[in-house]
Amino acid sequence: MAPTKTTMGKIAGLEKIFSPKSIAVIGASHDPTKIGHVVLKNFMDGGFPGKLYPVNPSSTEVLGLPCFKSVKDIPGKVDSAVIAIPAKFVPGALEECGAKGVLSAVVISGGFAEVGEKALEAQLVGSAEKYGMAVIGPNCMGVLNPAKRVDSIFLPIYKLGRPHVGEISFISQSGAVGGCIIDLAARAGIGISKFVSYGNASVVSECDLLEYLANDDSTKIIVCYFEGVKDGARFLKIASKITRKKPIIALKAGKSKSGARAALSHTAAMAGSAVAYEAAFRQARVTEAETLEELFDFAKMFSQPICCGRRIAIITNGGGNGVLSADSADKYGLELAQYSEQTSKSMRALLPSYANIGNPLDLIGDADAMRFEQAIRACMDDHNVDALVINILFQTAAIDTRVVSSIVKANGEQKKPMVVVATGGEYTEMHRRILDGYGIPTYQSPSSAINALSKFVDYCEHYRKFNVTACRV
Amino acid sequence: MAPTKTTMGKIAGLEKIFSPKSIAVIGASHDPTKIGHVVLKNFMDGGFPGKLYPVNPSSTEVLGLPCFKSVKDIPGKVDSAVIAIPAKFVPGALEECGAKGVLSAVVISGGFAEVGEKALEAQLVGSAEKYGMAVIGPNCMGVLNPAKRVDSIFLPIYKLGRPHVGEISFISQSGAVGGCIIDLAARAGIGISKFVSYGNASVVSECDLLEYLANDDSTKIIVCYFEGVKDGARFLKIASKITRKKPIIALKAGKSKSGARAALSHTAAMAGSAVAYEAAFRQARVTEAETLEELFDFAKMFSQPICCGRRIAIITNGGGNGVLSADSADKYGLELAQYSEQTSKSMRALLPSYANIGNPLDLIGDADAMRFEQAIRACMDDHNVDALVINILFQTAAIDTRVVSSIVKANGEQKKPMVVVATGGEYTEMHRRILDGYGIPTYQSPSSAINALSKFVDYCEHYRKFNVTACRV
Repeated sequence: MAPTKTTMGKIAGLEKIFSPKSIAVIGASHDPTKIGHVVLKNFMDGGFPGKLYPVNPSSTEVLGLPCFKSVKDIPGKVDSAVIAIPAKFVPGALEECGAKGVLSAVVISGGFAEVGEKALEAQLVGSAEKYGMAVIGPNCMGVLNPAKRVDSIFLPIYKLGRPHVGEISFISQSGAVGGCIIDLAARAGIGISKFVSYGNASVVSECDLLEYLANDDSTKIIVCYFEGVKDGARFLKIASKITRKKPIIALKAGKSKSGARAALSHTAAMAGSAVAYEAAFRQARVTEAETLEELFDFAKMFSQPICCGRRIAIITNGGGNGVLSADSADKYGLELAQYSEQTSKSMRALLPSYANIGNPLDLIGDADAMRFEQAIRACMDDHNVDALVINILFQTAAIDTRVVSSIVKANGEQKKPMVVVATGGEYTEMHRRILDGYGIPTYQSPSSAINALSKFVDYCEHYRKFNVTACRV
Repeated sequence: MAPTKTTMGKIAGLEKIFSPKSIAVIGASHDPTKIGHVVLKNFMDGGFPGKLYPVNPSSTEVLGLPCFKSVKDIPGKVDSAVIAIPAKFVPGALEECGAKGVLSAVVISGGFAEVGEKALEAQLVGSAEKYGMAVIGPNCMGVLNPAKRVDSIFLPIYKLGRPHVGEISFISQSGAVGGCIIDLAARAGIGISKFVSYGNASVVSECDLLEYLANDDSTKIIVCYFEGVKDGARFLKIASKITRKKPIIALKAGKSKSGARAALSHTAAMAGSAVAYEAAFRQARVTEAETLEELFDFAKMFSQPICCGRRIAIITNGGGNGVLSADSADKYGLELAQYSEQTSKSMRALLPSYANIGNPLDLIGDADAMRFEQAIRACMDDHNVDALVINILFQTAAIDTRVVSSIVKANGEQKKPMVVVATGGEYTEMHRRILDGYGIPTYQSPSSAINALSKFVDYCEHYRKFNVTACRV
């Protein structure tokens, strides 16, 4: 999708934010409790390969790097600035950036419209527009691009994990919510492409970010947390175009009366009506998440190969999980596949005589890794099956860790989407993390897995209309 | 509540199952892959203080203990038997138990009505009734009573964690589902009183177990996973009586058409209509969980002190989590408390001048443990607040682990229920586990926390009608 003229400058600026060769940290400090200190240190510790310029009028050196009084004093070219100074000094700092030719900045500082300081925010916007700068924030948490080792998030790396390189990009109006999701992704071994906490969105809006990500080849899935969308019509237009090529998953906060009030004092967002947002999301084929868990659960799911139908196979070594999975399939509108003759025959040979060859397919509590592998193989090859839901009770005596290899192998063929359900404590979690790390989405319960799968199946139906060769028949 | 005459024998038998002085393991084996081996070993490894008698006609010794050909050959008294032998031998083994005077048994073996062997199951019932035995199962996973070190669960302890002693009892028709929840509880540090996987429930039914737990002083909360309830009228009567004193939280599986079919082949349960169950649960004031996550989330919540109203205080150091919490409060019918003059005043003194003293109360990203402690203190003392929802972003630079102590201290006063919301990776999870271990329910998201709290608030309203002094005004 071609970007509009008005956003061309912003998109060029965003490119500098995500892939800078040189960065000025305005507000860099000796004091380890200051955001400017943490940001500079995180760039250094994270191995940013470009040039780093601390800026602070009261220091000559910070963390071993020469420190400049103003961004204007920096000898070389500066691609981007990270600004973490008191709000009242921010417009001036942006002016200096503009004069120096720095055409992009991330303003972490808060204290603008979200606390009623609308004039100060207008000044910030004025400085940015004067020089055609792309400015993220103010009142935001920073930006992450693991491929380029860009990390302006001011939270300590031992508290907030940083994910490895992947295909999910995530834009979040709230730093807190964004940070939580990033931390969850890092923990589960799920990679990301770009992360942006965009705060008050006074210059670069969520729509600008969406346009950027639409054209970013390393982004395959776009995940959003919104408190308010500034230009509904533009959002609808952009999002509708994007979802023909890439999924957008969004959580809209502030949908209730109390929530809307809270959003206003948080990011100065006009939250708008819940009904209007739901309708817009539906029309633009944006996948809506109702909770933080769903946002994370759906994001994981959408990295699977395109689904070519609604017929699922449920495999389990625990009968109760099979029953719960079947309940969830009904609830979320997925069909239980009727196995082919071939599958039924091979399952009959595989299982004890008293076992039911049905769907859910109960491999019985004494199933080992090999029985799982054969059942998964049969379902992968069965033309009546569009997706697999694999419930594994890792707690049984018979199952062992090799089942992980079988699943990774089957998923590696990229033929059909699969999800793994595994409920339990540390031993089970360890296996889930390995699977998640290989891009196989795992879930705590049949309900959360099948909910996520159903949203993906719905999206794939839409996607296939515009990508007719996605499913070879 | 006085048990009915017909169940008196079963209740005495159940007492022997949960607190035996001596146990026969019928099917004990040298072979570590056999269930009888694992069960015997788990009793030994778990430090069961009573007598253990392996029974197996083809051995004279198992795991260093003398082995008997039949339960009848055991010289001393035997309180209870755990039976893990092929289905066809089970009725005979029960006959021998009856003849020996063993009046309780847990039959782990499957291969009865769930696979169509109705005659064999009828034989088992016949043997049990002839001697008035309490029999759990068949087709079950065993029983756990950590206070008495009773553990007949046949899953390895390194795969399935065993929880410490606590106040939650859990009865599960499915071994797999039961095991998952037990494992989750162990991982989170949540204690249990009794756990029973009751399988086909052909002798001891879910109603018998409920009657037992109703009168068990060490059980404060009853959690159930059902696939089918055999006697709906009796269930309704018993459950209605119990919920006046203790909460019952239940997950009913097999509510959908596909789920019901799966349940039939799993535990031979007639799943019945979803509408009928929902109505019965509502009438009996049973708190219904829709998913495994809810079952676990609700169980944790109900250990908090009785809630005396619907007005909650939301405290947060991340604005976005405040917005999401407010949305959830609206969704689940909880009210945002209007703070007293005193609270507003002390919050005004505590927070930076630009902060909004509202509900949600945003302590701002630079809040430290002391700021949280003072805010929690103020809400605990505020008569306009009935419960606290504490959102903690453990990822900020300013917060530290001492906030855990503040919360444990406040919760220790047992004045008002509180929940903690903390979303994130390993660093955050570690803090959540510490809090859960102290009995403070923690959740992955505002939505799951407030959902659980709302169910507890609803139950407390019912409870207070029958326990009018629960809330001192």
